Amino acid sequence: MESLLMGEKIDQLGSQGLKIIQNPTKFKFTMDAFLLANFVQVKSSQLVMDLGSGGGVLSLLLAQKAARIMGLEIQPELVAMARRSVALNALTEVITFWEGDLCCLPEELKRNSFDYVISNPPFFPLTRGPASGNAALATARFEVKATLKDVILASQRLVKGNGKVAYIFPTKRFPEMLLTLAKHHLQVQRLRFIYPYQGSLSNLFLVEAAINSKKEPEVLPPLIVHEPSGEYTTEMQKIFASF
Amino acid sequence: MESLLMGEKIDQLGSQGLKIIQNPTKFKFTMDAFLLANFVQVKSSQLVMDLGSGGGVLSLLLAQKAARIMGLEIQPELVAMARRSVALNALTEVITFWEGDLCCLPEELKRNSFDYVISNPPFFPLTRGPASGNAALATARFEVKATLKDVILASQRLVKGNGKVAYIFPTKRFPEMLLTLAKHHLQVQRLRFIYPYQGSLSNLFLVEAAINSKKEPEVLPPLIVHEPSGEYTTEMQKIFASF
Repeated sequence: MESLLMGEKIDQLGSQGLKIIQNPTKFKFTMDAFLLANFVQVKSSQLVMDLGSGGGVLSLLLAQKAARIMGLEIQPELVAMARRSVALNALTEVITFWEGDLCCLPEELKRNSFDYVISNPPFFPLTRGPASGNAALATARFEVKATLKDVILASQRLVKGNGKVAYIFPTKRFPEMLLTLAKHHLQVQRLRFIYPYQGSLSNLFLVEAAINSKKEPEVLPPLIVHEPSGEYTTEMQKIFASF
Repeated sequence: MESLLMGEKIDQLGSQGLKIIQNPTKFKFTMDAFLLANFVQVKSSQLVMDLGSGGGVLSLLLAQKAARIMGLEIQPELVAMARRSVALNALTEVITFWEGDLCCLPEELKRNSFDYVISNPPFFPLTRGPASGNAALATARFEVKATLKDVILASQRLVKGNGKVAYIFPTKRFPEMLLTLAKHHLQVQRLRFIYPYQGSLSNLFLVEAAINSKKEPEVLPPLIVHEPSGEYTTEMQKIFASF
């Protein structure tokens, strides 16, 4: 059993026996990781890069789907915690976390070598909203260390010529995402909008893009998260149950 | 009663007494006009431009909402037919159709003078699919006389600094729409995706944009057109019933 640091605990992740070490006072995974893991179409032969891998939740969720997963994270304490989660799940042969800055990619990460580059980037520009006093949470949520453009540029450098990138991002910043992808020669292939409730505005979206793809973009059926009662919809429950 | 040319007939338009002259062998209005007319938020004081006004369906649908509507259409026989529809509805004081090319705007149309510029542009690039042998239909559906870029450029020239533009367009060309809007300094304000059935891919979308708007873009709830049985959904029936 991996040792826990003060404030850490082991949580169930999904319904198929995965476990994750978290520090509830610092940062806990959200539903977003499940949404992105469900959206991507990773094949069992593929090498995946998780940019800004945080506590490792996305990499852990995709471990059953991909051949190998690498994560890159700038916060040393999160890298260390994520590595202990990997060991806890006996996934050290599948998942490797690197400590490093996606704005200045480590030499060890080979350019144009990943089949899929995925990320749950910081959602909020630094100019907006109060940055949290909690540094781990602030870095994950606000563009403290990396902006959307940085994430897309790093993705473009790491992805294979015939590979794909995929992100989850706030709908408010949707045009910015499309323009930044286009600027880096990434063509949208699939889009899916997330709605907290039926009849509400979309708050998040999922996007997949590929370099200079000729494929016509698809906008998938909407995903509604909650019933009016607040419970998860059947579709959302199925997504949770699939991991 | 206005005289009809050979092949023309008078059809009911909506449920509130509007009539439209159409030539079924050439071109008939589609549901798209109702979708766009329902989407725009035209105020009763506003001057609206309908680019590529065709048989005049969109202008007729919006006549109850706007102060004045002008339509621009390159096909003389459609302009003439649309004018007769306007007379038939006693709307000559509200709607005016101009014959002209949106790529070379008539001098009489004052620049930056319209509150709302709307269009149901040709959906298909000329390089794709067989152009119809029917010239009127081909011009309405294919980019024979005007491309998306032409429509957006004309819109940008005609719309007021604080005005809006709105279009309905195929989802396959969604990234192209967003990039072209951005290139012309039009910021997306509202988006709505149309789905033929629940669970299907989106086939059309509605977009509203404004020049250098700072407003955060909204993605509205999805609009599903048909029930699995093929009948219109309750929401679609309400839209039809509102005109």
